[in-house]
Amino acid sequence: MKHLIIALFLVLIITSIQAQDEETAQIKQIFDNVLTHQEAYHNLEYLCTEGPGRLVGSENSLKAIEYMKQYFKALGVDSVYLQEFRTPAWKCDSSSVWIIPQSGKPVMLHTDALGPSPATPMEGIRAEVIEVKGLDEVEKLGKEVISGKIVFYNRKWNPAFIRTFEGYGDAVDQRARGPEKAAEYGAVAVIVRSVTNSTDHFPHTGNTHYSNNKIPAVAISTLDADLLSEQLQKEPKTTAKVYVDSEDIPETITYNLIAEIKGKEKPEEIIVVGGHIDSWFNTPGAHDDGAGVVMTSDVLRIFKELNINNKRTIRAVVYMDEELYQSGGKAYALMVKNNGEKHYLALEADGGAFTPRMFTVNASEEIVGRIAAFQPYLKPYGIGEIKAGWGGVDIGPLKELGVPLMAYGTDSQRYFDMHHSANDTFDKINLRELQLGCGCITTIIYLADKYGIE
Amino acid sequence: MKHLIIALFLVLIITSIQAQDEETAQIKQIFDNVLTHQEAYHNLEYLCTEGPGRLVGSENSLKAIEYMKQYFKALGVDSVYLQEFRTPAWKCDSSSVWIIPQSGKPVMLHTDALGPSPATPMEGIRAEVIEVKGLDEVEKLGKEVISGKIVFYNRKWNPAFIRTFEGYGDAVDQRARGPEKAAEYGAVAVIVRSVTNSTDHFPHTGNTHYSNNKIPAVAISTLDADLLSEQLQKEPKTTAKVYVDSEDIPETITYNLIAEIKGKEKPEEIIVVGGHIDSWFNTPGAHDDGAGVVMTSDVLRIFKELNINNKRTIRAVVYMDEELYQSGGKAYALMVKNNGEKHYLALEADGGAFTPRMFTVNASEEIVGRIAAFQPYLKPYGIGEIKAGWGGVDIGPLKELGVPLMAYGTDSQRYFDMHHSANDTFDKINLRELQLGCGCITTIIYLADKYGIE
Repeated sequence: MKHLIIALFLVLIITSIQAQDEETAQIKQIFDNVLTHQEAYHNLEYLCTEGPGRLVGSENSLKAIEYMKQYFKALGVDSVYLQEFRTPAWKCDSSSVWIIPQSGKPVMLHTDALGPSPATPMEGIRAEVIEVKGLDEVEKLGKEVISGKIVFYNRKWNPAFIRTFEGYGDAVDQRARGPEKAAEYGAVAVIVRSVTNSTDHFPHTGNTHYSNNKIPAVAISTLDADLLSEQLQKEPKTTAKVYVDSEDIPETITYNLIAEIKGKEKPEEIIVVGGHIDSWFNTPGAHDDGAGVVMTSDVLRIFKELNINNKRTIRAVVYMDEELYQSGGKAYALMVKNNGEKHYLALEADGGAFTPRMFTVNASEEIVGRIAAFQPYLKPYGIGEIKAGWGGVDIGPLKELGVPLMAYGTDSQRYFDMHHSANDTFDKINLRELQLGCGCITTIIYLADKYGIE
Repeated sequence: MKHLIIALFLVLIITSIQAQDEETAQIKQIFDNVLTHQEAYHNLEYLCTEGPGRLVGSENSLKAIEYMKQYFKALGVDSVYLQEFRTPAWKCDSSSVWIIPQSGKPVMLHTDALGPSPATPMEGIRAEVIEVKGLDEVEKLGKEVISGKIVFYNRKWNPAFIRTFEGYGDAVDQRARGPEKAAEYGAVAVIVRSVTNSTDHFPHTGNTHYSNNKIPAVAISTLDADLLSEQLQKEPKTTAKVYVDSEDIPETITYNLIAEIKGKEKPEEIIVVGGHIDSWFNTPGAHDDGAGVVMTSDVLRIFKELNINNKRTIRAVVYMDEELYQSGGKAYALMVKNNGEKHYLALEADGGAFTPRMFTVNASEEIVGRIAAFQPYLKPYGIGEIKAGWGGVDIGPLKELGVPLMAYGTDSQRYFDMHHSANDTFDKINLRELQLGCGCITTIIYLADKYGIE
């Protein structure tokens, strides 16, 4: 019976949608526009080649914000402004790890520090290495074994997950919580196997959570993790030397960038789209998340060029600092709250510029259903499903203001080959996949504004 | 009413499928296997790096066939054998195009000959260039204008098609039929803008059809096509020199490779899967179609390793010569006919190793419906639809023997960036996307064999 009800409901939706041929034409116009325009692509090229390593607090992060500000101004949208805020930050100038065998010469590994790892002394930290597969193993071994050692987290990515984000979720605790746990048991430093499915020489950095006791923490490439593991098999008393040249920045002044086209009927209701401009220090951040910034910015360009009469205000937000302290998203939500702004919907793009696959919605069942009903319009363009799920890190703090959240989801198979590594370069961007992303995001925003989601 | 019937039908399918949890477990086992195995990936690496330019008649085409033969033998399948046949072939050693401006020095362009272009004299063919946008323009201009000239087909790829195969279909007549048409009107040579959506310096070759009067024909990169067009704007009397060093091979002995696992219940009914081992002379042919070969070959490995009890004989065919004369597919169908073999289903993979999207079926409505009912099993792995459509070039000749055909369809956005060019290299292959392809093809064959398609 439940299936019958679902089926009848589907029939109703299909019928009402088939009546809306003019929408199909409008959406085709959006895709004709994106597939013949390369502004988003060229903006991303700029961010990657002129502003790599855009970690909050860096010069390039400000250069990137300024570039996007000028881009919005040139578009001639209704307003473009910066939201200034203060946040702690962190920087890393270099890092390295050497395996020091009992016999033979030291081997330097491919390394990047985790953020915000403290620095080591100039001469590094040298100690015996203890390999573990997870946090529970540290607990089991206890202080007696762990104390004074360098803990080497080396649990491999499980490739059997179909969605790579699940593979990431399964492995990332070693990076996110491993150093904190090792410190609790007296370790002097931590080496983490890069959280990636790839077998190569790129180290993948990322965020790690510290409580009181901060110890230096670095990621090494998967090939080097295998090498270190083999060495420990051969010589269990092998030592390693970890060197990190990093610095906490107590406070930096930084910005979110806001640009908008005023709504023609309900300008006080705001639909916000965005991605984060910051990247890790070691990467051009093409897919993570230069792509999200340029795709969501393109929504405003398309609305302008096609003279779409938006009822509500369409606002693009370029968030700062998703990677390190998530301070941009928090600052933005605080401003929304303080100003008493009404946010109707918030969309984030932070999954790369791969071919379109889905939208996920973090909102009431009713709103999920309303947005999911738009899916047939987007099916020809690759959106196979719209369903309940993830929103986004930057828009996350809007949740407690009751704002419905949604995320643009791409085909994730390639994402973690590059994620948080020097491999996340502009040449990994396919023009058409990026363009289709611009089109899908613009279309869902167009439909949500026109037909509402409540 | 029609919608209600469809909806009720859907409910029935969903219900019957939900009863088949054991299948879900078997399919998960298939994907667990493929995602933790790299045989297909390593086979493809061999084909690309040790056997590039595998055009029929070449040494590398035979080396590649031999490699795959040894691979199948090592798998320990029930039989592995070559089907020898004879075919005309063609080879190209080099080609070039120079723009010779009225003022300034000659400019050499990025060029590959079309197959099977005749050679030019050693000194090349030099003539005035006439730019046209299509075959109809040649007809309109007529012999008076065309005769004695080099015809330059320069209609751009239309990026507005969502499926890139449609963009290809829209542009490819210039390459496939342009030289023949230009020859009919007295042209001395043809230059074609590469059939790609990319803006770069890779020429993309491909097949061209000749009738009696063969004139040399080459492709130039899209950037060079723009350059030549600009030059013709500046100096309409610009000449070009076309040079091709190629040779018809009247007859070569070559092979299709066949490997099979005998059916346990109906061994006389054959399910055939395959791709083509040949590539154009100018490319490693990673996506076109080394990928198709290694993915379909992997079906046998997985059936063996998981001890799947196939009712029917599962046969992998590695076809020779899809690109030039399609002689392998024709020879195979002739053998099937002469031997009176019963082919139950034929699947071809010739769309690259991008992320899975669909299967298309070229068969009766009933069979399409039966195969489409398997789609929910494959949805978690990326197969969004199974529908009536294309089969494949190599399996095409089986159609008149009444064999249901089907094609594995991937996400095509990146395909024509590389297609038929030196850019189709192994590093463009994503391990996981290739593995998922192996899994999807194996699963559909498993289901078709177990449940039947009639």
